[in-house]
Amino acid sequence: MTGPLGATDLPAPIGDRWFEDYVAGSVCDFGYATLSEAEIVAFARRYDPQSIHTDAAWSATGPFGGLIASGVHTIAACMRLYVDHYISHVASLASPGLNEIRWPRPVRPGDRLRIRVTVAEARASRSRPDRGLVHSAVEARNQDDHVVLSFTAINFLARRPSG
Amino acid sequence: MTGPLGATDLPAPIGDRWFEDYVAGSVCDFGYATLSEAEIVAFARRYDPQSIHTDAAWSATGPFGGLIASGVHTIAACMRLYVDHYISHVASLASPGLNEIRWPRPVRPGDRLRIRVTVAEARASRSRPDRGLVHSAVEARNQDDHVVLSFTAINFLARRPSG
Repeated sequence: MTGPLGATDLPAPIGDRWFEDYVAGSVCDFGYATLSEAEIVAFARRYDPQSIHTDAAWSATGPFGGLIASGVHTIAACMRLYVDHYISHVASLASPGLNEIRWPRPVRPGDRLRIRVTVAEARASRSRPDRGLVHSAVEARNQDDHVVLSFTAINFLARRPSG
Repeated sequence: MTGPLGATDLPAPIGDRWFEDYVAGSVCDFGYATLSEAEIVAFARRYDPQSIHTDAAWSATGPFGGLIASGVHTIAACMRLYVDHYISHVASLASPGLNEIRWPRPVRPGDRLRIRVTVAEARASRSRPDRGLVHSAVEARNQDDHVVLSFTAINFLARRPSG
């Protein structure tokens, strides 16, 4: 089971959370996500077949002293926490994209990852009054409190229905 | 089998390709990548469980008229082409990250994706003379020639050994 980690969460429950509930400056922590060695290898064989992600014996002699997850796999693992706990289950319309993905440290099998999400910017759409655009700064840390991933997510969210 | 699609590829083979071989302005096309409905659903259940990616019946009545792949899954599918055919198998040191990921159109089961990679910038490191930094603009198109994904990849690559 995963869930909010800190004392603060967005006040509206995820099943009734709308654009207006994403207030700039809000900070939430969610956890935990973990990737097993078997998952890391299977994912990499299909999508990112580099030895550092697929070959435990080779990786042991490499620069990281062991197998590390594909960076795309790390994004996927953290996206699960974002989707389960942060992005509205009723108001999410689409995501135009992600900005500035960074992997400052490797993720290893069994690492216990948590994410901190900060509402960086929320503005109503002028051309489409039914929605707003939210920029969220996401930072993932491991059990040693080292940042392993950061990015900014962009989401269109429906405004709260009136009445 | 996947491979280069166009008349041009980087001149050095991927097993003997070094920083010096990534010349700004070079353009290469690689294909094809395809995601099945079963893969799209399995990936999304694990990493991005939103109904638009996991529930074919629900999605048929939704805004896209059918199931679409998680955006992270689309990145993963295209990363496979990038790793198989573009990024050196001997000189790739690490990737600090990706910039400006955009998903302008959805990816559906069975779509036939290809990527075009343009060397946007290549500069030798001043602090570490054994390597250089390469920025590569990646654009993925489907069988209808619509862009479904774009991003800029950043890679450290070792310089060609002298002698």
